[in-house]
Amino acid sequence: MLNETARGVFIISVTPFDERGGLDLDGTDRLADFYAGCGVDGITILGMMGEAPKLAHEESIAFARRVIARAGKLPVVVGVSAPGFAPMAALTKAVMDLGAAGVMIAPPGGLKGDDGIVTYFQTCAEMIGTDTPFVLQDFPLANGLHIPVGVIERVVATCPNCIMLKHEDWPGLDKITAVRAREKSGMRRLSILVGNGGLFLPFELERGADGAMTGYAFPEMLVEVCRLMAAGRRSEAHDLFDAHLPLVRYEQQPGAGLAVRKYALRKRGILASDLQRKPGARVSRETAAEIDWLLDRLGGSVSIAPRESRRAAS
Amino acid sequence: MLNETARGVFIISVTPFDERGGLDLDGTDRLADFYAGCGVDGITILGMMGEAPKLAHEESIAFARRVIARAGKLPVVVGVSAPGFAPMAALTKAVMDLGAAGVMIAPPGGLKGDDGIVTYFQTCAEMIGTDTPFVLQDFPLANGLHIPVGVIERVVATCPNCIMLKHEDWPGLDKITAVRAREKSGMRRLSILVGNGGLFLPFELERGADGAMTGYAFPEMLVEVCRLMAAGRRSEAHDLFDAHLPLVRYEQQPGAGLAVRKYALRKRGILASDLQRKPGARVSRETAAEIDWLLDRLGGSVSIAPRESRRAAS
Amino acid sequence: MLNETARGVFIISVTPFDERGGLDLDGTDRLADFYAGCGVDGITILGMMGEAPKLAHEESIAFARRVIARAGKLPVVVGVSAPGFAPMAALTKAVMDLGAAGVMIAPPGGLKGDDGIVTYFQTCAEMIGTDTPFVLQDFPLANGLHIPVGVIERVVATCPNCIMLKHEDWPGLDKITAVRAREKSGMRRLSILVGNGGLFLPFELERGADGAMTGYAFPEMLVEVCRLMAAGRRSEAHDLFDAHLPLVRYEQQPGAGLAVRKYALRKRGILASDLQRKPGARVSRETAAEIDWLLDRLGGSVSIAPRESRRAAS
Amino acid sequence: MLNETARGVFIISVTPFDERGGLDLDGTDRLADFYAGCGVDGITILGMMGEAPKLAHEESIAFARRVIARAGKLPVVVGVSAPGFAPMAALTKAVMDLGAAGVMIAPPGGLKGDDGIVTYFQTCAEMIGTDTPFVLQDFPLANGLHIPVGVIERVVATCPNCIMLKHEDWPGLDKITAVRAREKSGMRRLSILVGNGGLFLPFELERGADGAMTGYAFPEMLVEVCRLMAAGRRSEAHDLFDAHLPLVRYEQQPGAGLAVRKYALRKRGILASDLQRKPGARVSRETAAEIDWLLDRLGGSVSIAPRESRRAAS
Repeated sequence: MLNETARGVFIISVTPFDERGGLDLDGTDRLADFYAGCGVDGITILGMMGEAPKLAHEESIAFARRVIARAGKLPVVVGVSAPGFAPMAALTKAVMDLGAAGVMIAPPGGLKGDDGIVTYFQTCAEMIGTDTPFVLQDFPLANGLHIPVGVIERVVATCPNCIMLKHEDWPGLDKITAVRAREKSGMRRLSILVGNGGLFLPFELERGADGAMTGYAFPEMLVEVCRLMAAGRRSEAHDLFDAHLPLVRYEQQPGAGLAVRKYALRKRGILASDLQRKPGARVSRETAAEIDWLLDRLGGSVSIAPRESRRAAS
Repeated sequence: MLNETARGVFIISVTPFDERGGLDLDGTDRLADFYAGCGVDGITILGMMGEAPKLAHEESIAFARRVIARAGKLPVVVGVSAPGFAPMAALTKAVMDLGAAGVMIAPPGGLKGDDGIVTYFQTCAEMIGTDTPFVLQDFPLANGLHIPVGVIERVVATCPNCIMLKHEDWPGLDKITAVRAREKSGMRRLSILVGNGGLFLPFELERGADGAMTGYAFPEMLVEVCRLMAAGRRSEAHDLFDAHLPLVRYEQQPGAGLAVRKYALRKRGILASDLQRKPGARVSRETAAEIDWLLDRLGGSVSIAPRESRRAAS
Repeated sequence: MLNETARGVFIISVTPFDERGGLDLDGTDRLADFYAGCGVDGITILGMMGEAPKLAHEESIAFARRVIARAGKLPVVVGVSAPGFAPMAALTKAVMDLGAAGVMIAPPGGLKGDDGIVTYFQTCAEMIGTDTPFVLQDFPLANGLHIPVGVIERVVATCPNCIMLKHEDWPGLDKITAVRAREKSGMRRLSILVGNGGLFLPFELERGADGAMTGYAFPEMLVEVCRLMAAGRRSEAHDLFDAHLPLVRYEQQPGAGLAVRKYALRKRGILASDLQRKPGARVSRETAAEIDWLLDRLGGSVSIAPRESRRAAS
Repeated sequence: MLNETARGVFIISVTPFDERGGLDLDGTDRLADFYAGCGVDGITILGMMGEAPKLAHEESIAFARRVIARAGKLPVVVGVSAPGFAPMAALTKAVMDLGAAGVMIAPPGGLKGDDGIVTYFQTCAEMIGTDTPFVLQDFPLANGLHIPVGVIERVVATCPNCIMLKHEDWPGLDKITAVRAREKSGMRRLSILVGNGGLFLPFELERGADGAMTGYAFPEMLVEVCRLMAAGRRSEAHDLFDAHLPLVRYEQQPGAGLAVRKYALRKRGILASDLQRKPGARVSRETAAEIDWLLDRLGGSVSIAPRESRRAAS
């Protein structure tokens, strides 16, 4: 079960489709193996970048079952965000029964005031069952909702099963510092994994994050940056990260970024198809050429990238 | 099957729950009978005021099955709005198989530009099956999305299964006039039923609406106003409507209105419980007293209100 | 100077333009006289319905000077909402020097969290000068910002010059009750005047409002309803209010409502022109006919309406 | 006068304040000299990152006067975005009289439908005078408004004085390609300068942009990247850009970015104070240390950075 000691990289998994838009369950196995091979510490499925709202209920279950089975000992976190509590509770029960390690919840955008957000998560905590660990996803760019640090503290204080913050406020560096400062004055510790494409990962780790929960097409870079920072090798961590930054930045385009990620994963030989379900679309010809250029440059400059990335970039 | 000749009152049905929050299926029969007894021309379920997002998939199916069975020959329209196309298609297939007359779709708020809205509905039309009639719900107060008249025309031109406009733009009177004007210059005819609590019903009918698709706690008033207006008895229609306007206005409070409606339906003896699922809440003590006052005044001044309403108000 | 004992009707003044869009300063005198003649207790200018953002800085000053001069002993409140503090402070200083009784501030929509709202008003309070009384305008329908009751309490506690709440949350009845309840547990008293078209005025007064700050085209009705409610003549107050409700409701259409109001004021002989500055537009032909119908019906049913209204309706 | 042949770097100028928040007009001269010394092709003042809404009307004029006088032959573009047309027209007249080369207009967020945006710009074009060249600012991240390419085409077709697109949609690369494609089928040519921090500058130039209109703290990098790309030295352009990307990315944090930029400009010796007017705040201690680190790394890796940057970074 997921708890507040979680650290490292929980990769945000894409959802593989075949060329007709059907779930690619065989490809799901391959993808899970790839993630495991990159050295990730966990897998998060059915997040926003996992096209969760595009799956019918039964498809969500089928995909979760496959990933959880394949991931073996790797913990699997499942996004269960929903416009209502009953569907959220139904999906949570199903995936926890399948062996998920916990669930992730992004609040809807229209909550009213600090109290509205606290009450929302308290209701979630109760509806999913207080023995189900959950990740509070703080992602204003996606839902327009600002979650103050004081609200996070109140959720933590009243929901024992809130054990992780998926931090993707933007700007967000000072927020990590502020959350950790609260812990020094008595707030229960949370695991903090950063999302938002990992665009500030080395700094975020120094501010107090425990790792990343994002889906960059080169998970091994995220893993290695976390390792280097943990080892106190700051300059090397930045060097590696900065070498990837042109592509990280390119992948971090709202809406368009998932097409970039799926294209890169296909180029790396991980995905058989980079199709997204509608309204998602594939990259344009020009975009593909730009990604190819970035992959090429990445291939030439990064010494620690694993075999796969070099092959893709060559 | 629903088509562009639909007219009269398609009542927006509430969803009855018991005091513990479970679906009240027996109460559903009683509610369907009540609506039929008011003389409505159809029933619309799983709309926003039907707490649709609060139901798990199986509950939606169960509720739809019960209403469709009980409604007999009355057409039942089912709201299938969803954040993704696969869940929308799955629910549509299920309810059409159960005998629904058509489905209703409110677009999400973040669509981009006129083309984005047109493309959205074209994708819906294809995903639900082009033989499934659908209602385009135009409700900017709820989703922040303005749908220009020219966009409605383009949807109608390219989606043969778009056969009705649920009009609840606000302000919206001139929009009805504009849509009907387009029809004079070649746009295919749509049925237009007005929502938004029916706050402008008599005027809307004169502007060209075919009726109402809203859920006011006195459906018989909506039915009678439509009848009077169709008969050219304008002053009587306004007299009746204006007698109800204090309560119509009171019920038309965003967020709070459903609690008012359920309270009034319980006072009228239609609902066993006025419980809403969370995050909905019951009316406050003060609000209850105000509704009681309005029901009292309504009882005293409205001669055509049916027996039930008088009993409630006494 | 405005203070927390303010009560009655502070009419939200329109801004009169001539047919070419210039400020109609002579018409401004006539308008101020009309408002005074209706028995209002104050005049609020340069609010949202006063087309404030459409005036250049010098025009705002000129209009304020004229109204303040003409209003004599009637207190004049001036809307000074602005995207930045320096323009707000500049306008405040100018109008207070001219003799305004206080200013009104609506916050921008994007404030973050409860603290963000409190800080915003604290900065306002400081920037306009702590000896300038200000009205906190709570109008989520216009700016998308929910202001929790606890936030209002914190603003009141830390800003001695915050002396009035312009209440136009919607739904908002329980909010008035909640603010008054806080006062019982120690919060400093605020004057509460309701806006939002006065759509719930008699109930709002019973909940604890001190009056109205709205701009309905028949200010004398607002004045009389306040008087009747203060005298404990509840049924009469509702009777009068409900007779006007069809027009109140018609005027309370977001965006379109000001055109309705200006049209009605022109029909009553108060305004020489009902022109709004762009992007505002006049009422359509159909809308004009509907207002005429409502004025006609109002003329027939309202015994206390003053002479002007009967003339207009005839 | 600005026209559609404009190219290169129009730097988005910060507005210098002294430590008490007053306009620093002497510092304004120094800043203008710095920008000119970096080789920029124009200066854009009173943009969003110029804290425009925080200036009172007279301050805006005073600042514009000073920059225009100091800039000499360098064209100065002035942001005149305003919630209403009269203030926009008043500021435009004032700054054009002072010698501005043109104005820049960002639309408000709430425009309705494609037609609403077109009409808005047509009204602007008329209100500022059809002989005043204007820049259409397309910045959805700031105002939530998506401007479709077809809308841009319609504005260009009907507003002869619309001569430049400030492109900062995000993602936006394919949008540049789409605008240029329209020109091939008959749309009048626009200058396209990219904003959004220049986060994709080399790619944007290849897609068809004519340069940048952004305010990165090292304008000389923007100038040089434009020069290298124009010379067909693609790899060198990317090398230089990518060396700056860690800082570009750091500066491109919504809300927080301006504090970063002002801090960096102060460290470089350009600004005497990095104070922002409220609600802006200075960088935190941790943020300052991170910028210092980035400046250090930049100093070590960038061979073409001019003297000032090396000094700052050492």
